[in-house]
Amino acid sequence: MRAGFIGLGAMGRPMAANLAQAGRLEAVWNRTRARAEAFAAATGVGVATDPGELARRCDALLLCVSADADVLGVVDEAIPHLRPGTLVIDLSTVRPDTARVCDERVRAAGGAFLDAPVSGGVEGARGATLSMMLGGEARDVARARPLLEVLAARIVHLGPAGCGQAAKAVNQAMAAGINQAVSEALAFARALGLPGERVIEAVGGGAAGNWFLTHRGPTMLAGRFDPGFRVALHHKDLEICRDLAAGLGAHLPLVEMTLVHYRRLIDAGAGDLDISALFRHKQALFRG
Amino acid sequence: MRAGFIGLGAMGRPMAANLAQAGRLEAVWNRTRARAEAFAAATGVGVATDPGELARRCDALLLCVSADADVLGVVDEAIPHLRPGTLVIDLSTVRPDTARVCDERVRAAGGAFLDAPVSGGVEGARGATLSMMLGGEARDVARARPLLEVLAARIVHLGPAGCGQAAKAVNQAMAAGINQAVSEALAFARALGLPGERVIEAVGGGAAGNWFLTHRGPTMLAGRFDPGFRVALHHKDLEICRDLAAGLGAHLPLVEMTLVHYRRLIDAGAGDLDISALFRHKQALFRG
Repeated sequence: MRAGFIGLGAMGRPMAANLAQAGRLEAVWNRTRARAEAFAAATGVGVATDPGELARRCDALLLCVSADADVLGVVDEAIPHLRPGTLVIDLSTVRPDTARVCDERVRAAGGAFLDAPVSGGVEGARGATLSMMLGGEARDVARARPLLEVLAARIVHLGPAGCGQAAKAVNQAMAAGINQAVSEALAFARALGLPGERVIEAVGGGAAGNWFLTHRGPTMLAGRFDPGFRVALHHKDLEICRDLAAGLGAHLPLVEMTLVHYRRLIDAGAGDLDISALFRHKQALFRG
Repeated sequence: MRAGFIGLGAMGRPMAANLAQAGRLEAVWNRTRARAEAFAAATGVGVATDPGELARRCDALLLCVSADADVLGVVDEAIPHLRPGTLVIDLSTVRPDTARVCDERVRAAGGAFLDAPVSGGVEGARGATLSMMLGGEARDVARARPLLEVLAARIVHLGPAGCGQAAKAVNQAMAAGINQAVSEALAFARALGLPGERVIEAVGGGAAGNWFLTHRGPTMLAGRFDPGFRVALHHKDLEICRDLAAGLGAHLPLVEMTLVHYRRLIDAGAGDLDISALFRHKQALFRG
């Protein structure tokens, strides 16, 4: 199976690099062409001139972009050029509805679609330890598996098209609450005068232990907020959570709270920092 | 070092059993004597008639009780009977001030005191995989270590007397936020119609992964809330967090929110359920 990759951002680039290293990547395309050329120079894979050319060269097309409109735009460009049975695999985090629209359009053109958002941070993308949430047909998941196993340590099929994105919305809602929990508790630890690294070690080994504490706690306490996962992107994902909950006649209190806090960070020019910058907001609680 | 153990509750009993199995337990005492006798019959250790007798028989006294008044009461009963240098190790979760008072009184009587609260759930107590947060003198931590290693997989010294309890307050604040995050996100997953076990598998492997999701998510979704860790006890611990924050002129929003939700559960007769019963509150968000 010859794969093409679209979107060489913070998550996409290391995932594409893992495919290239496994000898499974034919070519890449990126909206900013210089980024594709740099990647091609480093890995020896080809650069496509547009998503259509990439579709003609490959029988699996993987996407990792930021916004719903980007996913729909790239899929629409690729569709006229798809080979019969080509797998279109969207690794982006977008609305379940967007996944269902892509699924219909790709299927009508003779291809197959999987929504396949991932979690595990840039570390997970680099080390291929991601967790992947799949929506689509079981037979397409089976066909895609050899490729997906190059990217992810855990591959979970949740149901038909859109279910991967719905599970990712659950993941992003939980991530918001955990960011709140970790940043509030570490601001508390700092205010109590406790040694931060030892608190992370002790708490990380108990019933409050979590990935975010272990991976972002030390940098949070050091005041370093290099992404990681950008505030503006998590804000976008939490708007998806809010809308899905509203569609169920409900609201998600921690999601609402985090949207407010992230909006303040974005308005203060911190939208491109890692989400652990929420620590700044929590520290302010202790300054009266 | 001959150890005595006081307090054979949900956490204390399996910890004492691990000490007995390691051949390090001389005798136990419990306020409800029948519980001590059942433990003695099962393990072959002795039963003391009161904390004073236990102190006379041992050179390390471990406590695992629920409330600050219980810790102070037991320590005051033991003090007149302490041997020179006896280690009094309090595994309970109480106020840092209580630990500092115990430290002063025990030290004045010629003994040594460590506050040593733990985290890791009843599973951690049984499997000796607990994380232990220590306050006290480094030389006493070193003396106690062979005993503590029977109980805990991670032993972290955070500073002088009271610092173990301060770190535990941070742990309990974080645990509250994580309970909020996990219960809200799983109620969302259920309302979205996703398969719960697969969501736990997928989310648990990513950046939102955490101990509580893996250990309490499945029972939460099954509507089973056997303790575990009781709502009423976590409520008590969060009052400690609230008071410590107030002493710093601050408040902890997730702690305050969780105190409100736990109070509702307690008033509804659910105070003896596991803290994952917060799921019930979150499910109600989706019922309009």
